[in-house]
Amino acid sequence: MNVRITGTGSFIPSEIETNEDFHQHQFLNEDGSPFKQNTDIIIKKFKSITGIRERRYAKQHHNASDLAFFAAEKAIADANINPEELDYIIFAHNFGDVKHNTIQSDILPSLASRVKHSLRIKNPKCVAYDILFGCPGWAEGVIQANAFIKAGIAKKCLVIGGETLSRVVDKYDRDSMIYSDGAGATIIEASNDEGGIITHETATFTYDEAYYLYFGKSNNQELCKDTRYIKMFGRKIYEFALTNVPLAMKACLDKSNIDIKDLKKIFIHQANEKMDEAIVERFYKLYNQEMPEGIMPMNIHKFGNSSVATIPTLFDMVSKGEVENQNIQKGDIIMFASVGAGMNINAIVYKY
Amino acid sequence: MNVRITGTGSFIPSEIETNEDFHQHQFLNEDGSPFKQNTDIIIKKFKSITGIRERRYAKQHHNASDLAFFAAEKAIADANINPEELDYIIFAHNFGDVKHNTIQSDILPSLASRVKHSLRIKNPKCVAYDILFGCPGWAEGVIQANAFIKAGIAKKCLVIGGETLSRVVDKYDRDSMIYSDGAGATIIEASNDEGGIITHETATFTYDEAYYLYFGKSNNQELCKDTRYIKMFGRKIYEFALTNVPLAMKACLDKSNIDIKDLKKIFIHQANEKMDEAIVERFYKLYNQEMPEGIMPMNIHKFGNSSVATIPTLFDMVSKGEVENQNIQKGDIIMFASVGAGMNINAIVYKY
Repeated sequence: MNVRITGTGSFIPSEIETNEDFHQHQFLNEDGSPFKQNTDIIIKKFKSITGIRERRYAKQHHNASDLAFFAAEKAIADANINPEELDYIIFAHNFGDVKHNTIQSDILPSLASRVKHSLRIKNPKCVAYDILFGCPGWAEGVIQANAFIKAGIAKKCLVIGGETLSRVVDKYDRDSMIYSDGAGATIIEASNDEGGIITHETATFTYDEAYYLYFGKSNNQELCKDTRYIKMFGRKIYEFALTNVPLAMKACLDKSNIDIKDLKKIFIHQANEKMDEAIVERFYKLYNQEMPEGIMPMNIHKFGNSSVATIPTLFDMVSKGEVENQNIQKGDIIMFASVGAGMNINAIVYKY
Repeated sequence: MNVRITGTGSFIPSEIETNEDFHQHQFLNEDGSPFKQNTDIIIKKFKSITGIRERRYAKQHHNASDLAFFAAEKAIADANINPEELDYIIFAHNFGDVKHNTIQSDILPSLASRVKHSLRIKNPKCVAYDILFGCPGWAEGVIQANAFIKAGIAKKCLVIGGETLSRVVDKYDRDSMIYSDGAGATIIEASNDEGGIITHETATFTYDEAYYLYFGKSNNQELCKDTRYIKMFGRKIYEFALTNVPLAMKACLDKSNIDIKDLKKIFIHQANEKMDEAIVERFYKLYNQEMPEGIMPMNIHKFGNSSVATIPTLFDMVSKGEVENQNIQKGDIIMFASVGAGMNINAIVYKY
């Protein structure tokens, strides 16, 4: 028995927020002091490091669970399954539903329950739960679905990554330009067809790293100290990721006994273009190889970093031929890899 | 191979909030109107239905992840394992860390990562994630640990239920008297010893039921509409639970092929004493049996409803002989059963 991705869907909000839209923002250092450079220069530097030109924000009346529902509907249609046959709905996110212009995360009930409700699924045996695992949440959901199928307690699972980071950004923090909204959904099934999940690898680093991404106060010292936003120690994360992600990817590939030359695509969590390139270069260097051109599809330029949603949305788009100069063919060996809050890292080697 | 609970621990905060402490509260109906009865009568009626005389609130400087850490330390000591050998830390909660006198849920990083950090575990292969699954979250975490062990990706897991409901109550809502704070932790291991998890059953009802428990505004109409609290449709939940929980418990027991007469204890989520008794009575009625005396240990009178924490704390206390007239012996067949937000229901038949 194999465990295969049989359908994908994504929802990218239509509201575009360009880098130019940040020109009027007043970015401050963590201690509240203004930057020496003007905002134009900060934005240019940001663009050259992250690759992000624009990002998407959910419409005001939509929350993370709505985006997820739209993506889920598409994945179900793509897999051509009856949603009543789903054994699990696994929803990965990091902030729940945060209504526009409010500051509370609404996670009661779970977002998976909300999606199941919206899908009008009646079958109570379809178990719906949320997983909090940082940006690698979608990939970890896939690993969990795989385990449930292997353990004989599931045959068909819906795994979703959905997030509205626009609702938790500190607009005085230049890192706010990174974050985006979106949702990607995937149907995972037990299958007699060839291909599927070959190996996976997960690691959680907390000894020194637990709070590299955290919920903290605004850089504007005049705002309420009790109102908190997504915050990160970017430099520490960069160094951490460059050291540990290539090793996790290698551990995953080595377990599969597949030659690195047979790897056709790497779908990596799009946090930052320069960091992603450096990670994949280092991964190839571990095998004394050059990073092949086009190995790493990207859509961060237009869609920013939507956390748990970057991989499933990118994978959906590439598999449907919607990313320029990128495609995957039946039988291709691909890898998913992610790093994020926790700090968590994971990787999956998959035969398409 | 069996999957057994090899250690338990709980943390009950020392701050006692008695029913008398609510005498000065002004309880309001959902529409903001005052009750016709005075507060004394409301409290007496509350006590007669729920059985709750007092509850525990976390100290101001403690959050859910702190209570969980204290419980986890005890469970690890009880199982006599090296924490570095843990393959998973699974943390079930519903609101994350909500600091005293603030309204935001802090779930970045995950609470499981926080506990792993506090435990000073270095091993990155110990995967830490949170599950949101309503009050049945701890039992579902056990079911997931069981699946990971069965799928061959884990041998030792720490499963925690921890919650500080005192931080999300609307003090104008009489239901606020139900909620409590606490944490229970359990070590789940692959084992060659006899006993362990025999069968399990899970269901998620969302078609009509998804929002029976929800995050809603205060009954005091003068408070900010954007600040939300734990809320429930008590009557609907009562009817839902009485219909569906006994059926899930029966499905779980029937799969195990164990005679109901051999069932020694039922550890049910303590939401409300009268409801729990009615559920267990109905369960026995499905087998044309009377509910045996003492079958259902309770500590709700002193500890209130701490959501995900009620079952693991009660199980810990009974297994250590800390609940009057209650004990379990090696070889006893017991059941865990829960119902809560989602709406989720689960049950586990277990040989102690």
